[in-house]
Amino acid sequence: MATQWAELYSNRIQRMQSSAIREILKITQRPDIISFAGGLPAPELFPTQEIIDASQRALEQHGIMALQYGLTEGFTPLREMIVEHMQRTGVNCGINNILITSGSQQALDLIGKIFIDPGDKVIVEQPTYLGALQAWDVYDAEYITVPTDDDGMLIDGLEKVLQSHQAKFIYAMPTFQNPMGISTSSSRRREIVRLAGHYNTPIVEDDPYGQLRYEGEAELPLIGIDAQMRNENKEQIVSGNVIYLSTFSKTLCPGFRVAWVTAPEDVIFRMVQAKQGSDLHTSTFSQVVAYETARDGFVEKHVKEIRRVYHERRDLMLGLLEELFPPGVTWTHPKGGLFLWIRLPEGMNSTELLEKAVEQKVAFVPGSPFYPCGGGENTMRINFSNATPEQIEEGVKRLAAVIKEAMQSR
Amino acid sequence: MATQWAELYSNRIQRMQSSAIREILKITQRPDIISFAGGLPAPELFPTQEIIDASQRALEQHGIMALQYGLTEGFTPLREMIVEHMQRTGVNCGINNILITSGSQQALDLIGKIFIDPGDKVIVEQPTYLGALQAWDVYDAEYITVPTDDDGMLIDGLEKVLQSHQAKFIYAMPTFQNPMGISTSSSRRREIVRLAGHYNTPIVEDDPYGQLRYEGEAELPLIGIDAQMRNENKEQIVSGNVIYLSTFSKTLCPGFRVAWVTAPEDVIFRMVQAKQGSDLHTSTFSQVVAYETARDGFVEKHVKEIRRVYHERRDLMLGLLEELFPPGVTWTHPKGGLFLWIRLPEGMNSTELLEKAVEQKVAFVPGSPFYPCGGGENTMRINFSNATPEQIEEGVKRLAAVIKEAMQSR
Repeated sequence: MATQWAELYSNRIQRMQSSAIREILKITQRPDIISFAGGLPAPELFPTQEIIDASQRALEQHGIMALQYGLTEGFTPLREMIVEHMQRTGVNCGINNILITSGSQQALDLIGKIFIDPGDKVIVEQPTYLGALQAWDVYDAEYITVPTDDDGMLIDGLEKVLQSHQAKFIYAMPTFQNPMGISTSSSRRREIVRLAGHYNTPIVEDDPYGQLRYEGEAELPLIGIDAQMRNENKEQIVSGNVIYLSTFSKTLCPGFRVAWVTAPEDVIFRMVQAKQGSDLHTSTFSQVVAYETARDGFVEKHVKEIRRVYHERRDLMLGLLEELFPPGVTWTHPKGGLFLWIRLPEGMNSTELLEKAVEQKVAFVPGSPFYPCGGGENTMRINFSNATPEQIEEGVKRLAAVIKEAMQSR
Repeated sequence: MATQWAELYSNRIQRMQSSAIREILKITQRPDIISFAGGLPAPELFPTQEIIDASQRALEQHGIMALQYGLTEGFTPLREMIVEHMQRTGVNCGINNILITSGSQQALDLIGKIFIDPGDKVIVEQPTYLGALQAWDVYDAEYITVPTDDDGMLIDGLEKVLQSHQAKFIYAMPTFQNPMGISTSSSRRREIVRLAGHYNTPIVEDDPYGQLRYEGEAELPLIGIDAQMRNENKEQIVSGNVIYLSTFSKTLCPGFRVAWVTAPEDVIFRMVQAKQGSDLHTSTFSQVVAYETARDGFVEKHVKEIRRVYHERRDLMLGLLEELFPPGVTWTHPKGGLFLWIRLPEGMNSTELLEKAVEQKVAFVPGSPFYPCGGGENTMRINFSNATPEQIEEGVKRLAAVIKEAMQSR
């Protein structure tokens, strides 16, 4: 008799959905489609030759270490390099505050595993990063959303939520947020950290794009502000209130799946326990080659080139939107990161629009999956890092035509 | 105020324990200790030069593919190579039956995620693989154990358990089992597959060591037997009753963290959904380099050398145990794999013995953590693949002395 698998699956599976983003990525891998859908870096900027050289060096110098089982915490020299990086951003931490994860997605999963019991509440920006929702849905999280504007979370909205709900944590992406591209202002950052401390609610700060700033002054990450506030009280990061996630996916390449968590020692210890059961450790081969590529200041040098190219593409795209998009459509003006966020007139539906767009061989991500409590049907996320200038020009033309047509036929 | 993390953790964390194995690995990384504790391959057999060459080829030929985000299912040429490998072992499958995972540990985690609700029962061999227990403890699995002898699970024991419990699945490692090193006999394999089908209970077959046989004829894996039985009924693997796990960790190197699942399409589809939330995809860099190293029959050629070396080490260790261990101590005689299993006289405690052994600079893994329902205090697992012949000779001498001393002082 054929096995009745459907009767055997866990209840957890009810909330698993194939990621809209990844399903679209599959369609849009067709070479004739200009895709603004993914969050992919520009592949022509991958430091391929440096990685070839680093692979050879890594295997010649750390051959056994790179190919053998390793510590769950991660490759020690890589963790030490990250400590120095964090210290440069004003965060006083040591190696026991660092865990290497298999992409930030795994960090989100491990956070779900160690914190979320069924029905536990998580405070998120509205809209928020879809990958976090996917990670926590399976642990049966409930989401409380905080409205945002172009300066990030509304502070009175956050305080209202903190007053009325005991949440496990606040999930925030204050710097060049996915999906909106917006950045939380300096004063709001301080308010968010202060309120989180006041209401005894930790912050999970997701910062994949912090190094990709194209204009304006660098902002301290929330973990840095938290550390600063605490240093005034002579406390150390190890007793801080922020769990910070970042990654090499946008500064070197995503294919390594090498990211990290910076957090108080006890949180790192629990995440290590969870990671042992999840995948033992992140690919030592990837870690050692990432380390050998990144060391001696290469990342800092390389991101200058990434910033230059993405800055141009952002400007090109903003200019084209201004020129070609019909009145009634608005968008964010990100100072960094990979994404723009577009609002169509109320009543329009971007998911329906996507079908027409794909017919015209251009793709984006509809906004509603980024709203865990519903809404956002008239929004969409557009990536400007992956397509070439020629593709951006042609793609925005196609998209503008699709939007105009849809607006006229209303 | 300092964040009270302990009050925020999930209930799930109660069952997370730092892996005994990994904590011991930390101690035994001291270079003066001869460790039989880990399950580490012999690093001198890593095909380092082939991997250097493969890395260069991979990046020159598939540079973007190797460094960019990839499909959750895995790198297509690697999955195709695995289809051919599975077909050679008598399993009729296609690419949609294959998922690449970040080590088999991740496959165990994903299986827990998609199948296990709190309190669900899983049937396991007694003793069973510790890593599986770690993966499923966090999903709140309950374990039902089936007694084993040198030929694997006792069939009447399995049938009794199947009659009295509706379990989610049977977890079996029929070939050179971790921790015991034993292999399930041909006739019992057929009985296990038949009973599982009869009682509508799927099998999760974990097969990391199948290619490491040092004597005797190759046995069909359970998935192959299941397929064979079903082909007689004109059914295909896609409706089979077995989820099969294997890995490149023991045939190439563990550092890649590249393993795979072969299963019916619907199970693969669900595991893909779960993996999207867990880590998006396994390191494309590791996958592409593993593929470039493994292709054109390299694994088949390379495992011959691994078999030759491990065969010698197993023989050396068996000879030394025979010569040096006191009467009253017994052990298994594995035909393959990485481990021996030692039984001390009843009443002795191998966890207490470990402390004395580490004082004498030799290490092993105590057996009791492999017994999810208690027991096994007088057992221990010994690895024979990682230490050199000189270390094996010296280490067994030390261990024999520690055991003799403990037996005399009883």
